[in-house]
Amino acid sequence: MQISVLFSGGKDSSLSAIMLEPFFEVELVTCSFSLLPIEEVASETAEVLGFPHRMIKPEISVLEKAYEMIMQDGFPRNAINFIHKNVIEKLASDSDVTFIADGIRRDDRVPMLDIPEVRSIEDRFSVHYVCPLRGFGRAAVNELVKDHLIIEEGLSENVLKADYETELREIIGQNHGQGKIEEIFPRHVQSHVIGRRKSRTA
Amino acid sequence: MQISVLFSGGKDSSLSAIMLEPFFEVELVTCSFSLLPIEEVASETAEVLGFPHRMIKPEISVLEKAYEMIMQDGFPRNAINFIHKNVIEKLASDSDVTFIADGIRRDDRVPMLDIPEVRSIEDRFSVHYVCPLRGFGRAAVNELVKDHLIIEEGLSENVLKADYETELREIIGQNHGQGKIEEIFPRHVQSHVIGRRKSRTA
Repeated sequence: MQISVLFSGGKDSSLSAIMLEPFFEVELVTCSFSLLPIEEVASETAEVLGFPHRMIKPEISVLEKAYEMIMQDGFPRNAINFIHKNVIEKLASDSDVTFIADGIRRDDRVPMLDIPEVRSIEDRFSVHYVCPLRGFGRAAVNELVKDHLIIEEGLSENVLKADYETELREIIGQNHGQGKIEEIFPRHVQSHVIGRRKSRTA
Repeated sequence: MQISVLFSGGKDSSLSAIMLEPFFEVELVTCSFSLLPIEEVASETAEVLGFPHRMIKPEISVLEKAYEMIMQDGFPRNAINFIHKNVIEKLASDSDVTFIADGIRRDDRVPMLDIPEVRSIEDRFSVHYVCPLRGFGRAAVNELVKDHLIIEEGLSENVLKADYETELREIIGQNHGQGKIEEIFPRHVQSHVIGRRKSRTA
């Protein structure tokens, strides 16, 4: 069975792919609106992990709508969820896709589909949407990350990640300058995967 | 890293163990109050799956309290959750245990700890409580079961399972007869694992 894992180059999506690997043929899929070299970053990390990788490129209107939402809300949650849902629906409508995996953890809040949204997507597109880390807390994920990944951490403005936030920050910066980015996005530590360890037990 | 997987001999706990196997040293743990030959059923299935197995035997007072709850409520939910929480706390208090796994799926309702209960157990006992199927719907679990397990299905009164319900049914039957069991427990199809398939991708 093939599974398409939504991939940001971060530790959660990387670990999700690793945990699914013994049971599925994994491909990694990254969203970009081509504002920044997201594709390059994501495909390099995918290669380090040893998985095939492809891009998904929604219409630019999706990013524009998300940008409008974020400017109206003053916080990124709804905009990120909007892009996320759009990406999943685009992926689900691909007739070759039957399993979609999302790297959210137990304690995550964004991006997050609720159960009725998940069931609606599964029913409309005849796909399975699975979250292999959904039943793992942050500390448990960290233990598994230590076993399987080599990561680099840095503040969100210094690490180019292949996530939705990166291009949202860019479009806000282009229109309103750096100050507005810092107003909307809380500073946080981002992880970027730079290598894979052999599992102790595998 | 060692992980103790709560094991009923059913497909969800068996599949959970299989999905954790590439990443942990798995042991299966089954609860019984020694009213019925639960140990025999569970250890046979564990052997078929190829995992080490042990029993956990809470005080009989836990079953008696659960029995009181069920007779008062008229339905099994709270009683089953009560036993479940008790078993997890007993397991978590074992100083050799650091990871506990529970086979609940996305769509399950019982037994189910809520997030504050989970965090409380993790904090008080310094353990990780993980649910590898928590992010998988029923249909996705069934696809994985087809790949990895051979199962036998039957009505709940005909299949001796190593779950909490089995001994609760027994204690109710001993005190009130078969009619009372049928009044409290809805008839449902139980699965019992009888074999393991080699994975297609492994």
